Amino acid sequence: MPKVDFAAVPRSNRTGYPEPFASDVAGRLVSRLGDIFGLQDFGASHVILEPGAMSSQRHWHEDEDELVVMLSGEAVLIEDEGRSILHPGDCAVFPKGVANGHHLVNESGEKCIFVAIGRTAAGPCHYPDVDLHYDGASRTFVRKDGRPYSAAAS
Amino acid sequence: MPKVDFAAVPRSNRTGYPEPFASDVAGRLVSRLGDIFGLQDFGASHVILEPGAMSSQRHWHEDEDELVVMLSGEAVLIEDEGRSILHPGDCAVFPKGVANGHHLVNESGEKCIFVAIGRTAAGPCHYPDVDLHYDGASRTFVRKDGRPYSAAAS
Repeated sequence: MPKVDFAAVPRSNRTGYPEPFASDVAGRLVSRLGDIFGLQDFGASHVILEPGAMSSQRHWHEDEDELVVMLSGEAVLIEDEGRSILHPGDCAVFPKGVANGHHLVNESGEKCIFVAIGRTAAGPCHYPDVDLHYDGASRTFVRKDGRPYSAAAS
Repeated sequence: MPKVDFAAVPRSNRTGYPEPFASDVAGRLVSRLGDIFGLQDFGASHVILEPGAMSSQRHWHEDEDELVVMLSGEAVLIEDEGRSILHPGDCAVFPKGVANGHHLVNESGEKCIFVAIGRTAAGPCHYPDVDLHYDGASRTFVRKDGRPYSAAAS
């Protein structure tokens, strides 16, 4: 059936971030709808953020458009221009190549849920607040000067 | 600002369908977020369906993955396997090439709102219920036998 049964889809808080950045997303529970249902044109993640968790480190992609659709609860969108509260029904758009680091933080006491759309594969990603860079070619997280993190980056 | 101000974005009920198929979507008010905000990787339409309106004629794409995210109100998803009610927070996934015609119909007395994700350009589209075919090469709607519709298909 095309309608997604969220009780049946796999969900994980796995991250490729090295520590100490991984802990910030430990409360991010992701169901990768695109992979599960065989979508090829774009990726789609259905995300539950527990209180205190963030969607990602604040970042922007060189080569990946992103769209966030807020479904329930409340999240704070933090980007260069400031803070915005996202309520159910709100959308936020992040065209690729726009150097405006962004992420969602659940500062509320309840979980929130959103869908994030992006590409299935993407190039470099920049993290303005932390010593982190995603190298699109090797698909690994490195320090800003290019040095690798330890094997913790799994 | 990345957060979308829906009061400020353009919205249209324009359709390329010829009559009599156009009337079925007259109450479909679309804001093309991808075009408005310069997304290149995928298309994203924020859609208001007035009571009685449908999202499209029942269709399936040969070359376009689709994802629907329900935001408010209630719609009936109709496809080969039957009918499902979509409530806020529900998602439905339509991988390209799967010959399962689908559409949303607002059978309620209130408007409903959803976001539909797809490609920015797409190939052939099939309409199992009506004498309609979308020709991806010429980007026109034709009859199932290939004959053109009149100039009404604007």
